[in-house]
Amino acid sequence: MASTWGENIKLSIFGGSHTEAIGVVLDNLPPNEKIDMEKIRVQMARRAPGKDKTATTRLEADEPQVLSGLFNGVTTGAPLAAIIANTNTRSKDYSDLKIHPRPGHADYTASVRYDGANDIRGGGHFSGRLTACLVFAGAVCRQILERRGITIGAHAYAVGSAKDTPFDPVNVSKDDLNALNTRFFAVNSPKAEEKMRAEIEAARLDADSIGGIIECAAVGVPAGIGSPMFGGIENVFASILYGIPAVKGVEFGAGFDVACMRGSENNDAFYYDENGLVRTKTNNAGGILGGITTGMPILFRIAVKPTPSIGREQHTVDLTTKTNADLTIHGRHDPCIVPRAIPVAEAAAALALMDLLR
Amino acid sequence: MASTWGENIKLSIFGGSHTEAIGVVLDNLPPNEKIDMEKIRVQMARRAPGKDKTATTRLEADEPQVLSGLFNGVTTGAPLAAIIANTNTRSKDYSDLKIHPRPGHADYTASVRYDGANDIRGGGHFSGRLTACLVFAGAVCRQILERRGITIGAHAYAVGSAKDTPFDPVNVSKDDLNALNTRFFAVNSPKAEEKMRAEIEAARLDADSIGGIIECAAVGVPAGIGSPMFGGIENVFASILYGIPAVKGVEFGAGFDVACMRGSENNDAFYYDENGLVRTKTNNAGGILGGITTGMPILFRIAVKPTPSIGREQHTVDLTTKTNADLTIHGRHDPCIVPRAIPVAEAAAALALMDLLR
Amino acid sequence: MASTWGENIKLSIFGGSHTEAIGVVLDNLPPNEKIDMEKIRVQMARRAPGKDKTATTRLEADEPQVLSGLFNGVTTGAPLAAIIANTNTRSKDYSDLKIHPRPGHADYTASVRYDGANDIRGGGHFSGRLTACLVFAGAVCRQILERRGITIGAHAYAVGSAKDTPFDPVNVSKDDLNALNTRFFAVNSPKAEEKMRAEIEAARLDADSIGGIIECAAVGVPAGIGSPMFGGIENVFASILYGIPAVKGVEFGAGFDVACMRGSENNDAFYYDENGLVRTKTNNAGGILGGITTGMPILFRIAVKPTPSIGREQHTVDLTTKTNADLTIHGRHDPCIVPRAIPVAEAAAALALMDLLR
Amino acid sequence: MASTWGENIKLSIFGGSHTEAIGVVLDNLPPNEKIDMEKIRVQMARRAPGKDKTATTRLEADEPQVLSGLFNGVTTGAPLAAIIANTNTRSKDYSDLKIHPRPGHADYTASVRYDGANDIRGGGHFSGRLTACLVFAGAVCRQILERRGITIGAHAYAVGSAKDTPFDPVNVSKDDLNALNTRFFAVNSPKAEEKMRAEIEAARLDADSIGGIIECAAVGVPAGIGSPMFGGIENVFASILYGIPAVKGVEFGAGFDVACMRGSENNDAFYYDENGLVRTKTNNAGGILGGITTGMPILFRIAVKPTPSIGREQHTVDLTTKTNADLTIHGRHDPCIVPRAIPVAEAAAALALMDLLR
Repeated sequence: MASTWGENIKLSIFGGSHTEAIGVVLDNLPPNEKIDMEKIRVQMARRAPGKDKTATTRLEADEPQVLSGLFNGVTTGAPLAAIIANTNTRSKDYSDLKIHPRPGHADYTASVRYDGANDIRGGGHFSGRLTACLVFAGAVCRQILERRGITIGAHAYAVGSAKDTPFDPVNVSKDDLNALNTRFFAVNSPKAEEKMRAEIEAARLDADSIGGIIECAAVGVPAGIGSPMFGGIENVFASILYGIPAVKGVEFGAGFDVACMRGSENNDAFYYDENGLVRTKTNNAGGILGGITTGMPILFRIAVKPTPSIGREQHTVDLTTKTNADLTIHGRHDPCIVPRAIPVAEAAAALALMDLLR
Repeated sequence: MASTWGENIKLSIFGGSHTEAIGVVLDNLPPNEKIDMEKIRVQMARRAPGKDKTATTRLEADEPQVLSGLFNGVTTGAPLAAIIANTNTRSKDYSDLKIHPRPGHADYTASVRYDGANDIRGGGHFSGRLTACLVFAGAVCRQILERRGITIGAHAYAVGSAKDTPFDPVNVSKDDLNALNTRFFAVNSPKAEEKMRAEIEAARLDADSIGGIIECAAVGVPAGIGSPMFGGIENVFASILYGIPAVKGVEFGAGFDVACMRGSENNDAFYYDENGLVRTKTNNAGGILGGITTGMPILFRIAVKPTPSIGREQHTVDLTTKTNADLTIHGRHDPCIVPRAIPVAEAAAALALMDLLR
Repeated sequence: MASTWGENIKLSIFGGSHTEAIGVVLDNLPPNEKIDMEKIRVQMARRAPGKDKTATTRLEADEPQVLSGLFNGVTTGAPLAAIIANTNTRSKDYSDLKIHPRPGHADYTASVRYDGANDIRGGGHFSGRLTACLVFAGAVCRQILERRGITIGAHAYAVGSAKDTPFDPVNVSKDDLNALNTRFFAVNSPKAEEKMRAEIEAARLDADSIGGIIECAAVGVPAGIGSPMFGGIENVFASILYGIPAVKGVEFGAGFDVACMRGSENNDAFYYDENGLVRTKTNNAGGILGGITTGMPILFRIAVKPTPSIGREQHTVDLTTKTNADLTIHGRHDPCIVPRAIPVAEAAAALALMDLLR
Repeated sequence: MASTWGENIKLSIFGGSHTEAIGVVLDNLPPNEKIDMEKIRVQMARRAPGKDKTATTRLEADEPQVLSGLFNGVTTGAPLAAIIANTNTRSKDYSDLKIHPRPGHADYTASVRYDGANDIRGGGHFSGRLTACLVFAGAVCRQILERRGITIGAHAYAVGSAKDTPFDPVNVSKDDLNALNTRFFAVNSPKAEEKMRAEIEAARLDADSIGGIIECAAVGVPAGIGSPMFGGIENVFASILYGIPAVKGVEFGAGFDVACMRGSENNDAFYYDENGLVRTKTNNAGGILGGITTGMPILFRIAVKPTPSIGREQHTVDLTTKTNADLTIHGRHDPCIVPRAIPVAEAAAALALMDLLR
């Protein structure tokens, strides 16, 4: 169902880039959970635009206003609702898009889907701005999950040809993730960040954009979470991760690399560690067997396509004259979505885990 | 929810490898749809084991028995239910697994999840045998979709290092897919099949297994199907595709390759074709923008891990003595799941489209 | 799931009596539907308090603020969200309720359910005030349904021993319903209203309250809507009607009177009317057979309990000292909920039909 | 969704009166629950026809065959599936119904809903026979609930004008319910049974049928179960109870009698009992406040319409000639459904509680 998600929690997201506000409702949270608004702001700031040259220079006041669900800073068990006002919007930039759909955007498909009634200003309900709601909701869940010993973190795994040091699938630790999960443009290796920034700057100077991959880990998730078939960790994670605009691939553990692997190499051998806990020597499974957690770190990667809004002239159609046309998109856009999408991936993981653990 | 799937149709799958039967219920199908049982048998035979050396030599009588939902071969609108009896089972092969969980299998995670009550015989409800139910249900949906002009087909895209010719993302046709979608070990290039069979045979002779990738296409899906956010084509497809055991990655269109692409390269330019239809010159989007179909072929790939059951000795644990242990799995197993999983991927795509189009 | 409802539309309601705002999100509405805000205000005014002596004298500014989903007054297909600010709240009235739960209210059960974290001010998320959100969402749906030829209306069927003239189950017309569905304290017979007002005034003067029954009809619903078993009209209607606080019974058509009826009397004989349409001579079925509409008027009644907040001293417990206690509730309360609940019942019916028709 | 039900458990029912079998799948049951098949047979026998003159003399071999979900008589956590073969069917009795829809039956509405494709033999998927699946699934849940201290029982509250002694809303006990819940034609007062049997016999001799009311109680349900708004006990119970064919009303506690009550009378005063537990002196709430259990007995009643199949000539239409027609239904039918529906109501209550407690 479009903008509602979850089986055990219910997430409902609304709004568009240029509506009065965007917002989020999160139902069935556990009661009596203290929520630190400052921690939420930290996460929202990581996603907010205007940081540096890797992102659009638009300034958005992403201050969430909680309308319900908290009393004296504590969850009441009733739906938690928050809105974020839309302020710095330039509606004139978008006047042309009903006629000339932008390649790589949802302008055309939304127009067919909604008989032309879709609010196209700033991408409307398809705007990446809506991920602010995911980050808000995820930031709430992360605080609850942390109290249950679960830590989530992500980094820019690749931007163009530049690659970061991947997580150690077996030993990635809470500390590793905490070192990442409050940073903007989180990476494991500072050198990788340099190279990535160079790729992004090159794209920007070319009036172009560049794609990338985000890797995310969750540690502290106990064994036995998830269900077979359609209730598996992978199913639940993918069902929300593909809700992040621009994601075109999701893989877990060794992911697509399993294609080249032998079973003897891919199988993760079980052993008892010094504390008498069952662990695996490798973690090609990404912490998931049969859809259910093994107790090892959960690991996934998402492929993020290059921002479709680019400054170069592109070929498109004129939907009124039914002829081919050219389009130059003006306005400010992110040359690379990856840095700002990192906290979104973490938030989605937090929501997925909250849903699975309720 | 574990073994139930779908928003507009409802799929419910039950049974285990060694229960009396496995079965499937499919609710909310359109009425008055003629269902050809012979076409269903063709699909089920493609998945059934015992074909050749690429697969287990177990023989399973995968004859579905329809219990309800059809009257004189036509859908009544009431739930369509079918069961497949379990016959050729060797229960003695599995007696040890409660104590020594097989690496790469769900034995350990299921045991934690279900407090040891899980039926471990043949993998129980986690068995790949359950995909017979998916193929049955998908084969029903495919006949309905074909009447609406939609054709689905898939091929072995990679097995180990051997690669098949990929689909032409723009021009893959109904005929291309029909040439594949009744074959066992479907490939676009006969040479690729040879190489793939060699990889599989090498693995088999090593008492090992090998992974691969399946590529699937659906043509004839009209533009405007799907919804934003969590109701997108990618979300719905992934939520069922990850229900196929052994799938560790799902990607659409250019998939993970978008990481290295510039926006100017990845964006698919729109144009009007000779029939006045909007099309795109490339199809990196895999036929999906903003979660909604563009009218171009839908394209996705799934990563299939190597069969975890291998003949080699492996390291595991003894859950009773809480010590490390070695395990040698006897019995007959597929050295590569890819050939038999091809019709399963097609079936999952059919179910996803049926759900989206209802 | 608590505060989310619907299979084909998704309704999400949030807020409490004394939170910053209450609000509602309605996803999957059809696009291109013009929504007249003035008609929404008419419905909300019918539910708003402060009308006359039958209702609480509290004044609530029930002005909905639409945040998204409409563009130039037309549905975009994206989630429609609206909030209603909470203004005239007297928090001090409710300070005692955590200790002394009010009989007939959710204070005690919510406290157990939410480990004492529930926001008890004004009943919190259990407050009848939340029905303003139902009325808003229903008023949106009614405008869409009217364009499809469907009209909904309700009246006070009973208040205490005073009874109104019931709807003619066979001939209740669009005009009959339109004469009711914009009025406060809607009744078919003015004499009945007089008697009902007398009952309410008597209760009010006794510092007490009185219950009643609301009868609701929907005309113009085509035959063939609904599904067997759990997808029936009755199931869907009841699942939302019981979301109205104070409802303790729901019946359709002849309802509980069927207990005393013979089959020969209860069965509604089919016949062809002058327009060649299948109709029934009686309508004991309330327009529903096998969960599916017959094309005759849909008829249901809901039992509304007397307002639990009364001025009289009542027996309760002290949850801190674990002793019995007495409680006198101060503040302003409705001596009878029935008049204000009429538009809520209509709204729930509209939402149910919208869900069934999507 | 038609024939699927539940949020935390998933119930899926399939089959028709004359299909090869009817069946049920129950997903997400807790593992490690011992299920006594004999207890299930006791419940199914209570619903089975052919007992005495109050019921149809058809003989149905309602022997459930478990296909999966149990291993050595214990739940595995995987979906529990069972089928019941259809044997003693007289297809010829129903040949006329596509043309002449039976008044009070779903023949006409199903025909419109499913474009004439519905399997009309014996009512198809709308047949009361499907309640055997509810009884099976409920009997499984009752065994699990009993281990958690919850007991369910019901009785014939009314048949025509004959009334049984109602449950004591405050003191109805586990023993009271156990005295009822294995009996056929369960009543509290033997005299009431006599009068009810007389009403049924009179209807039968008139080639007619008679309606009634069933009252059901559940004791031992702890306080704090259920949720506000649409997740309330009443919503969940009603959503499954209306899945029982012939139910036209559902009420809780004082139900429709609240219409005539003052708040001072209807409010249930809280007090501490001798064990320090919060209880209420009366139980007009039927154990539910704000949708959440109080810990007092849950009480509800359902109105059961007279069997629509009667021997008398009735008026209907000829759907082929589009003219009015007369119809005489042959075959064997229950003059009153109430006795056989008692275990069905109990089963539905058990399923609802299982869903709420998971």
